[in-house]
Amino acid sequence: MDQDTLVIIGGDAAGMSAASKVRRVHPDKKILVFEKSSYTSYSACGIPYFISGLIASAEKLVRRSPEEFREKFNIDVRTQHLVQEVDTNNKRIRVLDKEKNTEFWQSYAQLLIATGGKAYCPTDIKGHDAENVFGVTTLKSGINIENYIKDKKPKTAVIIGGGYIGLEMAEALLIRNIEVKIINRGEQLMNTLDPDMGILISQAVHNLGAKVYLGEALKAFEVKDNKVTKIITDKQEITADIVVFGMGSSPNTAFLEGSGIKLGVKNAIKVNAQMQTNIPDVWAAGDCTETLHLVSKQHVHIALGTVANKTGLVAGSSIAGEAAVFPGAVGTAVCKVCSYEVARTGLQEKELEKLGIEYVATTTDSRTRANYYPGSKKIVVKLLAEKNSGRLLGGQIIGEEGAAKRIDVLATAVTHNLTLQNIIDLDLSYAPPFSPVWDPVQTCARKLVKMV
Amino acid sequence: MDQDTLVIIGGDAAGMSAASKVRRVHPDKKILVFEKSSYTSYSACGIPYFISGLIASAEKLVRRSPEEFREKFNIDVRTQHLVQEVDTNNKRIRVLDKEKNTEFWQSYAQLLIATGGKAYCPTDIKGHDAENVFGVTTLKSGINIENYIKDKKPKTAVIIGGGYIGLEMAEALLIRNIEVKIINRGEQLMNTLDPDMGILISQAVHNLGAKVYLGEALKAFEVKDNKVTKIITDKQEITADIVVFGMGSSPNTAFLEGSGIKLGVKNAIKVNAQMQTNIPDVWAAGDCTETLHLVSKQHVHIALGTVANKTGLVAGSSIAGEAAVFPGAVGTAVCKVCSYEVARTGLQEKELEKLGIEYVATTTDSRTRANYYPGSKKIVVKLLAEKNSGRLLGGQIIGEEGAAKRIDVLATAVTHNLTLQNIIDLDLSYAPPFSPVWDPVQTCARKLVKMV
Repeated sequence: MDQDTLVIIGGDAAGMSAASKVRRVHPDKKILVFEKSSYTSYSACGIPYFISGLIASAEKLVRRSPEEFREKFNIDVRTQHLVQEVDTNNKRIRVLDKEKNTEFWQSYAQLLIATGGKAYCPTDIKGHDAENVFGVTTLKSGINIENYIKDKKPKTAVIIGGGYIGLEMAEALLIRNIEVKIINRGEQLMNTLDPDMGILISQAVHNLGAKVYLGEALKAFEVKDNKVTKIITDKQEITADIVVFGMGSSPNTAFLEGSGIKLGVKNAIKVNAQMQTNIPDVWAAGDCTETLHLVSKQHVHIALGTVANKTGLVAGSSIAGEAAVFPGAVGTAVCKVCSYEVARTGLQEKELEKLGIEYVATTTDSRTRANYYPGSKKIVVKLLAEKNSGRLLGGQIIGEEGAAKRIDVLATAVTHNLTLQNIIDLDLSYAPPFSPVWDPVQTCARKLVKMV
Repeated sequence: MDQDTLVIIGGDAAGMSAASKVRRVHPDKKILVFEKSSYTSYSACGIPYFISGLIASAEKLVRRSPEEFREKFNIDVRTQHLVQEVDTNNKRIRVLDKEKNTEFWQSYAQLLIATGGKAYCPTDIKGHDAENVFGVTTLKSGINIENYIKDKKPKTAVIIGGGYIGLEMAEALLIRNIEVKIINRGEQLMNTLDPDMGILISQAVHNLGAKVYLGEALKAFEVKDNKVTKIITDKQEITADIVVFGMGSSPNTAFLEGSGIKLGVKNAIKVNAQMQTNIPDVWAAGDCTETLHLVSKQHVHIALGTVANKTGLVAGSSIAGEAAVFPGAVGTAVCKVCSYEVARTGLQEKELEKLGIEYVATTTDSRTRANYYPGSKKIVVKLLAEKNSGRLLGGQIIGEEGAAKRIDVLATAVTHNLTLQNIIDLDLSYAPPFSPVWDPVQTCARKLVKMV
């Protein structure tokens, strides 16, 4: 019984991409998915826009419901089921049915682990789980925040952490007319940017009306009636009605302890290019896995929907018996904070220094459209290239409308080892409403090529 | 005397890019520029936006004036000077001073020809030079149209030709509340797109309120008091207050007859990768030259600001004694028609058929942002790839805001021989305000890769 069953742990992007792929190749294969929440295939990246009110309901973030997967795709999705243990010796998993509060063992022929990540939460600080303290990773967490805002009408918020999620949540709360303070341990917001670019974000966020406190660490909460009332840092005390963690996320892999499945960076699951773990018949994909960084050639943890979808598809192909390879990623990311757009790809200065790679770097100010064309906005581009060879190693962009998506040319260039001269020579598109005649990324390459 | 002088014919993008480059390398070199109009370094691409009223004055399209070049850069620009003849044997040119109406010979040490292109005009049709008939290539022609509209308040316009200029002018005239009819000889607008994409443009332009007549050729004008009053095609007669030609452009090279300088495609000047002509000490750059198409490996004529600026820079470097190469172009172009964006790169179906290259092609409908994100617009992507190898050969995009600039990733891919699988594997940027999790170009690549 269940000898041919593909069991998937986790019903979001990676898990359901894989399930759908296997279903397309094998119309009759038994596919069983255990998902701890009530939702499948939702866009966690959309949560801040649901909270800001831009998106009317949380359901809009769900691409396909468990019912749809069951009825249209014959994929047996069991929601409210939390997997507790993987027994690779006997090819079975221990599952908690959260509704019935019962446990059972489920055997598998193939297993895919796609348990995603969880928002980092300082569990050693009392009050981290108070009712007005929120993380932002699952759809449920988003709904919790929304309900709390609707019911309690908070006037002030403190966001701990100034990365992508922190800033997107800052925008969302500002739109809801909530006063926002951001506490950030590092000396700059968005530490995936170099400091000279990070400072531009701090200024932009400040201009939007949020208060930013840099180089300041959370020490304790003051808690009253299961609510945090005061945030105590190493420099000040701040009162707030709600607290949001934007301190990054970590892979959901604690339940794999003792399974024999090898973990790597940040306890993300080690996989090969076919998304196979070290254990036969066990695959992993999405935010719970390691990713090969194509520039540093090192393994990193990237928790992004793009990588989750790609690795899910490759895992599905591999399970279905098709040849497929996930080559890796280059750390591309993009984020909108009100009218500002921020994007990055490749390696940043501190990574290059750590790797001992000699590099040159520069920034240029340019415009998103022809100078004279209405709506033309400022765009700052930073490029980093290998000394002597001129090979592009990374790029960072900050600007307004039309700025960020230009990172894609740089991501393509970084991936395929293009040099600055190659970028200058690219036949990029130009018309006054879209770009200056030299695209801003080329303007920066023209400046940097002289320093190589 | 003048033994070391660099003489440049043409003071727009290519000529002045070269002049500026030479000046940066050689602060004291004598640089003499002859420009037939009163303007230097202006954006011809901006003319439709000046006519629409989006840009308040023609002067805004001028990047640097002749005075600026003379005073700040010590570049001796002589406007209203038309070069009539190049005598390569004696290294001199014959120049007409249009203001004084006198001619003189000017010798050169090095000569750069950057005379650009001129709007195609059917000179065999009586009335082609009537006072309400306009081409759109020089700033002067744009000013002429604007003055005519201001003075005579035309209510109806006929545009002959449905390429980029024709459609941009259609937008401009619609914005000025002028009724627009487009007469197009071919069976589709924008013949640089495949017919299945071209038809979408026809529909879009029709939706904007312009009447489009396809497969219809201009036969004659009815002229009264030096004004065209009726446009006679092979199918109908149309009355109109003004007529605009958008029938493409051809290189300004007629004055080179007998000079020994070799011409190629469409009488564009033949140059090597350093922008040298076949005659020692004579360079050429910009719209008057041939361009190597990097996919077809054939020489073509591309009249675009991007190529003009690049080839001008390379010619300048080469003249200044620096190593520089213009590798060629891939035919990237982009155009806005009201809310629609159109972009293309690489080869289209009819070119591939002519070259005998076996290919596969498909289109996909996608969205510019996450489906649920406000302002998400439809985007249609077409990709063409080599049969068996899957190497990308071309791409075409039609959509609304945020659609067109995605062509740049495809231009990069086409230039560097990336395959469809390479495109699928690219780590392109994603966040809900910018893109679906699979960028539309990847969605199309995923569909097409199955057909390779």
